[in-house]
Amino acid sequence: MQHDFTSHSADLAQPRSFPWIAHGFALGGDYSPEQWPEELWQEDVALMRRAGVNSVNLGVFSWGLLEVADGQYDWGWLDRAMDLLHENGVGVNLATPTAAPPMWLMQAHPEIATVDQFGVRTSQGGRLAWSPSSAVFRRYALRFVRAIAERYGSHPALRLWHVSNEIGNENARCYSDETALAWQSWLAAKFGDIAALNEAWGTAFWGHHYTSFDQVLPPRHARTAHNPGLLLDFERFTSDALLGHYLAERAVLREVTPDIPITTNFMVMNSPGVADYRRWADEVDLVANDHYTIGADPERHGELSFSADRARGIAGGRPWLLIEHSTSAVNWQPVNRAKSVGELARNSLAHIARGADGALFFQWRVSSAGSEQFHSGIVPHAGADSKIFREVEQLGATLRALAPVVGSTVERARVGILFDWESASAWQAGNKPTRSISYLDLPLALHRAVTARGIAAEVVRPQDGLEGFDLVLVPTLYLAAPGVAEGLTEFVRGGGHVLVSYLSGIVDEHNRVITGGYPGAFRELLGVRVEEFFPLFEGESVTLDTGQTATTWTELLRTEGAEVLSSYATGELAGIPAITRARVGAGTATYLATTLDAAGIRSLVDDLVALAGVAPVADVDAGLEVTRRVSGDRSFLFLINHTDASLTARASGTDLVTGSVHPGSVAVPAGGVVVLEEDAR
Amino acid sequence: MQHDFTSHSADLAQPRSFPWIAHGFALGGDYSPEQWPEELWQEDVALMRRAGVNSVNLGVFSWGLLEVADGQYDWGWLDRAMDLLHENGVGVNLATPTAAPPMWLMQAHPEIATVDQFGVRTSQGGRLAWSPSSAVFRRYALRFVRAIAERYGSHPALRLWHVSNEIGNENARCYSDETALAWQSWLAAKFGDIAALNEAWGTAFWGHHYTSFDQVLPPRHARTAHNPGLLLDFERFTSDALLGHYLAERAVLREVTPDIPITTNFMVMNSPGVADYRRWADEVDLVANDHYTIGADPERHGELSFSADRARGIAGGRPWLLIEHSTSAVNWQPVNRAKSVGELARNSLAHIARGADGALFFQWRVSSAGSEQFHSGIVPHAGADSKIFREVEQLGATLRALAPVVGSTVERARVGILFDWESASAWQAGNKPTRSISYLDLPLALHRAVTARGIAAEVVRPQDGLEGFDLVLVPTLYLAAPGVAEGLTEFVRGGGHVLVSYLSGIVDEHNRVITGGYPGAFRELLGVRVEEFFPLFEGESVTLDTGQTATTWTELLRTEGAEVLSSYATGELAGIPAITRARVGAGTATYLATTLDAAGIRSLVDDLVALAGVAPVADVDAGLEVTRRVSGDRSFLFLINHTDASLTARASGTDLVTGSVHPGSVAVPAGGVVVLEEDAR
Amino acid sequence: MQHDFTSHSADLAQPRSFPWIAHGFALGGDYSPEQWPEELWQEDVALMRRAGVNSVNLGVFSWGLLEVADGQYDWGWLDRAMDLLHENGVGVNLATPTAAPPMWLMQAHPEIATVDQFGVRTSQGGRLAWSPSSAVFRRYALRFVRAIAERYGSHPALRLWHVSNEIGNENARCYSDETALAWQSWLAAKFGDIAALNEAWGTAFWGHHYTSFDQVLPPRHARTAHNPGLLLDFERFTSDALLGHYLAERAVLREVTPDIPITTNFMVMNSPGVADYRRWADEVDLVANDHYTIGADPERHGELSFSADRARGIAGGRPWLLIEHSTSAVNWQPVNRAKSVGELARNSLAHIARGADGALFFQWRVSSAGSEQFHSGIVPHAGADSKIFREVEQLGATLRALAPVVGSTVERARVGILFDWESASAWQAGNKPTRSISYLDLPLALHRAVTARGIAAEVVRPQDGLEGFDLVLVPTLYLAAPGVAEGLTEFVRGGGHVLVSYLSGIVDEHNRVITGGYPGAFRELLGVRVEEFFPLFEGESVTLDTGQTATTWTELLRTEGAEVLSSYATGELAGIPAITRARVGAGTATYLATTLDAAGIRSLVDDLVALAGVAPVADVDAGLEVTRRVSGDRSFLFLINHTDASLTARASGTDLVTGSVHPGSVAVPAGGVVVLEEDAR
Repeated sequence: MQHDFTSHSADLAQPRSFPWIAHGFALGGDYSPEQWPEELWQEDVALMRRAGVNSVNLGVFSWGLLEVADGQYDWGWLDRAMDLLHENGVGVNLATPTAAPPMWLMQAHPEIATVDQFGVRTSQGGRLAWSPSSAVFRRYALRFVRAIAERYGSHPALRLWHVSNEIGNENARCYSDETALAWQSWLAAKFGDIAALNEAWGTAFWGHHYTSFDQVLPPRHARTAHNPGLLLDFERFTSDALLGHYLAERAVLREVTPDIPITTNFMVMNSPGVADYRRWADEVDLVANDHYTIGADPERHGELSFSADRARGIAGGRPWLLIEHSTSAVNWQPVNRAKSVGELARNSLAHIARGADGALFFQWRVSSAGSEQFHSGIVPHAGADSKIFREVEQLGATLRALAPVVGSTVERARVGILFDWESASAWQAGNKPTRSISYLDLPLALHRAVTARGIAAEVVRPQDGLEGFDLVLVPTLYLAAPGVAEGLTEFVRGGGHVLVSYLSGIVDEHNRVITGGYPGAFRELLGVRVEEFFPLFEGESVTLDTGQTATTWTELLRTEGAEVLSSYATGELAGIPAITRARVGAGTATYLATTLDAAGIRSLVDDLVALAGVAPVADVDAGLEVTRRVSGDRSFLFLINHTDASLTARASGTDLVTGSVHPGSVAVPAGGVVVLEEDAR
Repeated sequence: MQHDFTSHSADLAQPRSFPWIAHGFALGGDYSPEQWPEELWQEDVALMRRAGVNSVNLGVFSWGLLEVADGQYDWGWLDRAMDLLHENGVGVNLATPTAAPPMWLMQAHPEIATVDQFGVRTSQGGRLAWSPSSAVFRRYALRFVRAIAERYGSHPALRLWHVSNEIGNENARCYSDETALAWQSWLAAKFGDIAALNEAWGTAFWGHHYTSFDQVLPPRHARTAHNPGLLLDFERFTSDALLGHYLAERAVLREVTPDIPITTNFMVMNSPGVADYRRWADEVDLVANDHYTIGADPERHGELSFSADRARGIAGGRPWLLIEHSTSAVNWQPVNRAKSVGELARNSLAHIARGADGALFFQWRVSSAGSEQFHSGIVPHAGADSKIFREVEQLGATLRALAPVVGSTVERARVGILFDWESASAWQAGNKPTRSISYLDLPLALHRAVTARGIAAEVVRPQDGLEGFDLVLVPTLYLAAPGVAEGLTEFVRGGGHVLVSYLSGIVDEHNRVITGGYPGAFRELLGVRVEEFFPLFEGESVTLDTGQTATTWTELLRTEGAEVLSSYATGELAGIPAITRARVGAGTATYLATTLDAAGIRSLVDDLVALAGVAPVADVDAGLEVTRRVSGDRSFLFLINHTDASLTARASGTDLVTGSVHPGSVAVPAGGVVVLEEDAR
Repeated sequence: MQHDFTSHSADLAQPRSFPWIAHGFALGGDYSPEQWPEELWQEDVALMRRAGVNSVNLGVFSWGLLEVADGQYDWGWLDRAMDLLHENGVGVNLATPTAAPPMWLMQAHPEIATVDQFGVRTSQGGRLAWSPSSAVFRRYALRFVRAIAERYGSHPALRLWHVSNEIGNENARCYSDETALAWQSWLAAKFGDIAALNEAWGTAFWGHHYTSFDQVLPPRHARTAHNPGLLLDFERFTSDALLGHYLAERAVLREVTPDIPITTNFMVMNSPGVADYRRWADEVDLVANDHYTIGADPERHGELSFSADRARGIAGGRPWLLIEHSTSAVNWQPVNRAKSVGELARNSLAHIARGADGALFFQWRVSSAGSEQFHSGIVPHAGADSKIFREVEQLGATLRALAPVVGSTVERARVGILFDWESASAWQAGNKPTRSISYLDLPLALHRAVTARGIAAEVVRPQDGLEGFDLVLVPTLYLAAPGVAEGLTEFVRGGGHVLVSYLSGIVDEHNRVITGGYPGAFRELLGVRVEEFFPLFEGESVTLDTGQTATTWTELLRTEGAEVLSSYATGELAGIPAITRARVGAGTATYLATTLDAAGIRSLVDDLVALAGVAPVADVDAGLEVTRRVSGDRSFLFLINHTDASLTARASGTDLVTGSVHPGSVAVPAGGVVVLEEDAR
């Protein structure tokens, strides 16, 4: 696949040649000089040079320090910081700092803040308190965006506009009266007339019939669960309202600085969260993602890989930027685990292996005050003479050695995993047969089983097309958008292989159950008909006739054309099929009706990849994460060792960091990373 | 006991001959044609005929679909549904659909909704949001009730008015200013002058002295526990306020349709809940109950039996109707377990065995949209070709075979279990010695031990009289209403046997502790005096000198006339009596001062039934639930097998379903039910 | 040490000779005659005489019963109660009953109540609902205080003013608009100009820059953690606001009754709570403390000892009064455990052993109504013929036998444990590296290890001076106030020995991290530099090379001059030092970088007391709590046996209760207490 050397957005006046953020892979992070005396800035840039930092996010949250009173600006310190960074060869992703309304604005206009479902308005003291539906906030924000764009639009340090920060993270789901009006307008635009809304949501249930759009309130506090259709649309509205704010800022920026690319930082693993990032991605010039591991998760490197594949999927396969991650501990988990020696590099390079063109950290220098005073950074409280700074320095050296990789993209995988924000949101909306299943569970488990075999996967939205795949996994794709079942069926008829799991195709785009038997949308393709769900309690399990163990979810299933691969041997449903397969056209459609344990998942994936004839990226020892980036006829193998022992990959090439030549096999030390430029294949 | 062939309420103009709901046992459920296209209605009635459905609850929640704007009615669809049902021989329990105020009403009058103790008003989107103290809501509701009564009062399908739905389930305990006024009026009516209230509640504590009724607010948010007397009266007020709404609707219905019986569906196992159903029962023409099992409870069939006995107790021994239960899973539990094969029939028939004259389900056809889209029904999403529909069909056949049982009542038991809403409410009101004891724990445990021996029990309010009992169990009857201790004492003197447990007779009707030693009200009868409570922590246990194990609750007890049956052998209270017995007149009064495990409870019950000479309903294997209904000189034995093995009852008669004659003994298959018309005894 | 025979406060007009509360040790408690018919009062005083009660707290919460309407007083019952108590030789600590605003006042002025961070105003029904920043409340309260002071100021029963009750327990942290104004004034007074506040709190973070004090709101609901500096100052403001109310009442009382000592009851183990009691102590004439054990805590007697040592520390070593504890169960814990036989006496005497000059109980007669109807008292519901009353009677006899001890003080210990409300409050304010560490954990563990060896300790604020100590323990002293590090360093240079733990000296007085490496303030003294925190998850542990086990907390530490006492042998940090020691001047500074288990703590304390040459109070068996009170050249050994076996102390003297003479050794029976007047040493 050829690399797209231009920025993403079609309407950028002067498409920038890649890489526009930095020469080579981007390294750096959020820089907050405003928190420190200016005499320390010289030390900062000296250390940046030492570590190879070439890119910083600047000005995030600094609105109140720049617009010091209504309409009164103080640009001095930012002027000096921009100049200093430029002099030191550091590119700037300049924030429109709208994530933090100034205190004078919060005081003058408390009504800009979000209101929760109980009617409580957010007060000052956090961040992102503003409602995207607040007209007053929008007016102030855009005035400031124009001012900062006019001030710095032609500054030579400027590489990218970083719009606001993690939009939606703390200002999602506003329930205010002003938001209610925006919600009603959104509904009117979507449905046209109220009868269509009543039909879509099935408001005959509980007599929730509306006779005009102005009767429809946000899902405020009620003593029973809200209508699932309403809840799902409120998530969509919220995503659109937040995106609307981004678009409003973008319009000002585009007008003032038509040549400067624009993005905003996503949090793709907050999914379902409130942002339909796959749709947002169409509006940014570069997909930029924030990712933080959960220290208590022993499989966190698997979750990271999934996140990176998903970020690439959202970016449509194009390069993307890891715009925030952490050097070590964060500050918001119950116990904030520090990263082990080497984990920082493994994390950064795993993102790059999966398509990131840089690895930025929050933040440069750890704050001594404020809410995040214990969030790790590049320069810890203890200073640069520290494990962390040395690891970042070493990462900088590694990235420089990876210069040949710059401009490459990840080799397109033959396995697709369908993952959809709408589906996740629908599953979360309202009362469900069980609360023991999170939408991420099965996608993560399947991704882990696939990548553990050295096989690459794309994490994509069902609507993005299945071209090029041999095997498509459809884990708990609860909502079947129009056309998805048809697309899958066509894929299978044409020789593709598909695995569909329980809780897929259950509801339509309005979160209404598709009747006639589960999994409604995929029933015909799969040749099964599920009469009734039999969720299991925590601690309950049943055995399959293959000896495998199942928990959490079982179903009363009848085949209608499919063959039975395995059945329950114990429990309420003994004798009922648990895994089935239908042959359809030139392909197969496998149905998984139960929650297998990790061994069962591995075994099922083994069977499927054999069926589809999918080969691993390379022949590697278990425990070695392997991916390939390609650029023209050059190819680069990333090998990441997550174990405590040295592991081997059967591959030939040159280690880009050490320069060693490996004919036939390469050993990757415990906890280490090797990037091999492969011999021509 | 002779069956009461007329409706319950004395003021029904034309007492209806039983059964008025249906010919034979009622079978059916909530029917919501308004949720489906009319072309499906023909399939519905065809399926109803196939399954033997003869009774539906219609129009629940359909206010907004009938009064489409303020004072503007659209009866068309309901006219057609009523006619169609009538043509197909299905009787209608027509709802006054006030459980769901129309959206136009919620929009015009948001002040009709309940307000919680934090001042948050319920918004739209659930059900039953209205406050029973809202004058505006009352006016709109009664206008609609009159309209629907006038429209359908003489429709031939109409059998029963189903007033609103589960009143109190989501609109209990309103704390609004309008409610405060109603509360103050209620208090003024109850106490007459404020000094009496101060005395009753003991407001000298913490200086909570009131000088006028208008100072007394509902128990809104405070940072310490409220006065227990106030809390208990607020529960009583809430029950009365909700009942008041029912009575207001009833008055309109009675005026317009004096010949149509009226009820509202109770939820007796929500107890304590907020409804004193024993008092409500005096106001309905037929006690109708909703019952849902908790899937995670392995003893749920025992809880069901208790519920059914309690419903019969509330109905004063007269027939009652199971107006809602589920065919399989519900949707509001954390994991919604499906019912096993046969469980639907066992559940339905267990209710009928204990006096129900029908078994209706929520609902006919499972909704595809709305908050309950995953609540099971008679026709699942998968359609009629399904386990559930077939089981309902089979139940219909069984019920037709049980025609001879129609008109019978449950044989009066000789064991009474005292259970009281006021007592439960008092125990829940305020800080208590332990939070580890729920009011249902011991009543359920005793009921289970009694019925496990094949012995029948009545679950009755203490004030309902003890006539006819040989043994009365008094589990944690925390509040002793005036006269209860005297009644029990008289019962014992006359030769009755009584078991009183810990936490009985502790407080008077104002939730004030009766001083002088626990259990104050029953101390003299029992011949004991408890100085101090010694609750145990979770995981703690002590051993009795009988070898039994006790947990949760122990007491520092001194006998004053009673003999000691067993004492603690270990722990803080080693040597102190745990179970005592006093001989009083011709009877005995046993006191249980601690929480026994199941074996201990069984052993205690064995001892008591032997003492009282109570015989089982029939001689059956353990695991077989047995009850008897009688009608004139005919008698019917219901045998329900809750185990995985065939079990035997030593009884002679004819199986009403199969027609087989069983001389001397009958085998009940695993999971099965046999109804035997007994040979003349 | 000489006993201070005069009251604490310098400005008391007529310093009272000790003891002013009672002749001999005070015994009694809260007395609420207003809750009972007057005919019972005679029984009360008869029982008081029997038990030896000589001191009661009267009138707490009785405002509404005395000011029955705005400005209208009814003193009758209190007149009679005061007289009756005086006639029976019982001294009265008369409450200004402002803890309970009358209902007429709550009705007329609901705005006097606190508002929480969500904007919810506290309603009636609890206690202490008032905001200390309410001007209206202050006006009414002071008018009543003046009235009661004028009424009873010269009554012969009056010994002490008991101002309000547990100020701050339910009225801490008000967020109302009126409080916001007080908060802004407090900040303006503290910081002078807004730039100083911005600098102190580091408001550049998240752009929280203020341009005027009136922009700074209380930390109301936000969707992220507030600034740690703001949170800490809000705790200080809250403490000052509550103290301000006390001072306002005190001013009135001092004016009207200049000769009567004044106090208010503290809750020192609510720490951090909201009251900086060490500062409050300067404003009371006698430190009075409330203490309640947590039944579920198997180490509760250790917690009690710590509490008593802390009360003494707060009192500056002077006598103090245990003004509330319980005879047995309380009513606010999930399971309210009754006290074992003998526990009442052990608890009371343990407080006296550590400096209390009395042991009062809440309350005299257990209420039959009200929120605390199940809180134990001296006269239980069962009456005086009860275990509890008999135990109080026996305690009375013991206290009379201890007459020679009256006027003595606790011998000054050579071990100091530094404990600071500000430090605790800072640790609680905002996001931290782990939530698994409570501020009390390590202080309690060290105190337990020290006292388990029979060694006495003082629990003091760091600023109170280290004079007289040989060994100073500094457990998790998170905030290093100015001068504290210097004071410790001077102490060590002069030959003292100090143990500093992890999480000490991390932040300055503004809750800002001290940069350069942890533990910032103490780094130089300790000769270490910590780069990074490595908190452990629950269930994780590592082993030290000494074989000890560590959990919860570890650190990446480098020595800079200190020697290594032990290092991690396993885990992420294997080989990194865990305990170090620096020799500084004539002393040593030991650093503990990890959370040891109880055995590890004991071993560390053994090492430290050996190093410092600290001797035990007496040579006693393990399990025997030992303390010494001294008076001139007389000394008294308190020996409390917390085990089930008889234990021995090697000491000579006379048992004050039995009169037995013990030459060389004395056996203390299981669960018993012996007070020995020691032979001259």
